[in-house]
Amino acid sequence: MSAVKKDRFAATFSRIKDELLEFLDIHHMPPDAKAWFQLNLEYNVPGGKLNRGLSVVDTVEILRGRPLEGEEYFEVALLGWGVELLQAFFLVSDDLMDSSITRRGQPCWYRLEHPFKVGTIAINDAFMLEGAIYFLLKKHFKGRPYYVDLVDLFHDMSYFTELGQLIDLITAPEDDVDLNRFSSLKHRLIVVYKTSYYSFYLPVALAMIYSGISVPKEMPGLAQTLRFDSVEYPTNLKPGESPYHVAMDILLPLGEYFQVQDDYLDCFGVNIGKVGTDILDNKCSWVICTALKLASPQQRSILEANYGRKSSEMELKCKEVFEQLNIRQVYHDYEENAYKRIGSMIDSVREETWGNVTFRGDIFRSFVAKIYKRQK
Amino acid sequence: MSAVKKDRFAATFSRIKDELLEFLDIHHMPPDAKAWFQLNLEYNVPGGKLNRGLSVVDTVEILRGRPLEGEEYFEVALLGWGVELLQAFFLVSDDLMDSSITRRGQPCWYRLEHPFKVGTIAINDAFMLEGAIYFLLKKHFKGRPYYVDLVDLFHDMSYFTELGQLIDLITAPEDDVDLNRFSSLKHRLIVVYKTSYYSFYLPVALAMIYSGISVPKEMPGLAQTLRFDSVEYPTNLKPGESPYHVAMDILLPLGEYFQVQDDYLDCFGVNIGKVGTDILDNKCSWVICTALKLASPQQRSILEANYGRKSSEMELKCKEVFEQLNIRQVYHDYEENAYKRIGSMIDSVREETWGNVTFRGDIFRSFVAKIYKRQK
Repeated sequence: MSAVKKDRFAATFSRIKDELLEFLDIHHMPPDAKAWFQLNLEYNVPGGKLNRGLSVVDTVEILRGRPLEGEEYFEVALLGWGVELLQAFFLVSDDLMDSSITRRGQPCWYRLEHPFKVGTIAINDAFMLEGAIYFLLKKHFKGRPYYVDLVDLFHDMSYFTELGQLIDLITAPEDDVDLNRFSSLKHRLIVVYKTSYYSFYLPVALAMIYSGISVPKEMPGLAQTLRFDSVEYPTNLKPGESPYHVAMDILLPLGEYFQVQDDYLDCFGVNIGKVGTDILDNKCSWVICTALKLASPQQRSILEANYGRKSSEMELKCKEVFEQLNIRQVYHDYEENAYKRIGSMIDSVREETWGNVTFRGDIFRSFVAKIYKRQK
Repeated sequence: MSAVKKDRFAATFSRIKDELLEFLDIHHMPPDAKAWFQLNLEYNVPGGKLNRGLSVVDTVEILRGRPLEGEEYFEVALLGWGVELLQAFFLVSDDLMDSSITRRGQPCWYRLEHPFKVGTIAINDAFMLEGAIYFLLKKHFKGRPYYVDLVDLFHDMSYFTELGQLIDLITAPEDDVDLNRFSSLKHRLIVVYKTSYYSFYLPVALAMIYSGISVPKEMPGLAQTLRFDSVEYPTNLKPGESPYHVAMDILLPLGEYFQVQDDYLDCFGVNIGKVGTDILDNKCSWVICTALKLASPQQRSILEANYGRKSSEMELKCKEVFEQLNIRQVYHDYEENAYKRIGSMIDSVREETWGNVTFRGDIFRSFVAKIYKRQK
């Protein structure tokens, strides 16, 4: 079922691509430029799990209580591809900034030699992936009452992600280990800004805007919903919030839970199809942040001497400390707690109806189902 | 006078910067991230000639027929800073892609070591400079009837510039010389897309939108105004065109003329405050494109053997061919012709009034005055 859904969504990419390339024809761009952009799109956009893009479709279907067909399906899928283009924009540039080697089982775009020698041209290619989002939004939604809301939302989410990326880059540079920069609050800040907003809130909010759920005068921003002076999340929805605020209250913690799980699996996962490198790469991961909170001075010195070094022996020493600190159990407790807390927030979502659209807790339940106790 | 204007415009930057940094405070961003973004803004945005930003102010003043004061001045200056932020976004990333050494008399941002070791983090910094544009537009113009037109215009111009940059990067890679890729038409395509749109048309169109000149249903794009099957520009305005189309008809050729001049001065200029490197860097410059059109087979072989090599002896051999071909004279003829042609288009601009705003040829004359026969 899920594979069918994914295939249907993936099939719409060729029209998206054609529309983008047609623009280059209209502007008399030379064939080599068109071929380059085409490969940029094909290589970097459709090859992932497509969860973010699919979320937009799933959410609209739940809001409408019926499957989407024809041009309506395409429009919603196009918004999903907007999220996937944003993701591609970030990944192409992240890989260059991180000097990564592979992505989605193939060499990173900037490392490509044939048929094009990409190198740092990848930076401009990333810009074009971002530019493609606004080209598509304008082509399909300009003139509709919610066009400006879609555009503003993409802008806000991009800016938040870039802020999160900045904090991450200066907190955890690969060549300068300083564990004093790490903390659970810093970890949350990075995760929420760099991942939760665009991966969890953005797809749902796009679906809500498209479906006609009224946009409040002030769209929610994190300052209103999360506190960074405490690692405790609010556990209840605030009465009288707009559906967008409710969605953010639920989806940002859900995104954080997803990333904590990702960090955990990087260190402790088995058979997840990739080798974790967070310890070697000096990543500000949930695992190290939690360990630093629990470590004795002696254990902390071991971590300080061995974390973020390009040596698998040193990596092992860190893992020994993690085992001493029982991080596995701490994680399982965290997961149970997050699952319950988020579940109870979802249960308390009040149904609200706009025309033939109903905002309801179910739009969040499918996210939880995909995440809870996943092993990879 | 011009220095006073520039100082007044430059003085508004501190408020722009404060507004951008305040957002990081509201979002509880750590002090090191705020300090980093602050330096990014200070180092990369205000240090240029500010011609693009000033053009927005100049144009609104000509359209209104009076000087701007107070908050109105600030709003228009903010649009000007939007163009300067877009420019900074491009320059920071261009320098990384081109491995440039200095920019505006200081080391390129990505090469900075103190107080921050920037490196490839410059890529994310460039994104944030772009993101800052839309943050500022939203903060100041959201809710006004023309907000969406401002946003769309910035998007369109960015996308065009990225397209031009792509063609430039693949036409003239530094390490792979192939003069067959160069032609006068290719040169025009690169120049118009990479420079003219955002440097010439964007500031004027922003000023027109802000001043309330009605936006046509279809904003002009190059496909409607320039032909790439011929190096001849249209010499007359089409009757009945919208002011935006008229502005584009005039400003794109003007931007091309400016860039041709830039290319000429890079090779033949004296005392322009910098050493030209277009020949060494294999640039698709007007000079080489023109030379290739005029060269005998023998002269072409000399150019093919010596252009784009990192040797000043080889550079000299190219310059000898350029002298044989009398490129200086060809340029002076080009300049006179462009000056006359653009001048006659400007003279035929029909005045049109919207409320207390008059669209008139004067908005273009100040551009021409800044450019014609400049020596640096």
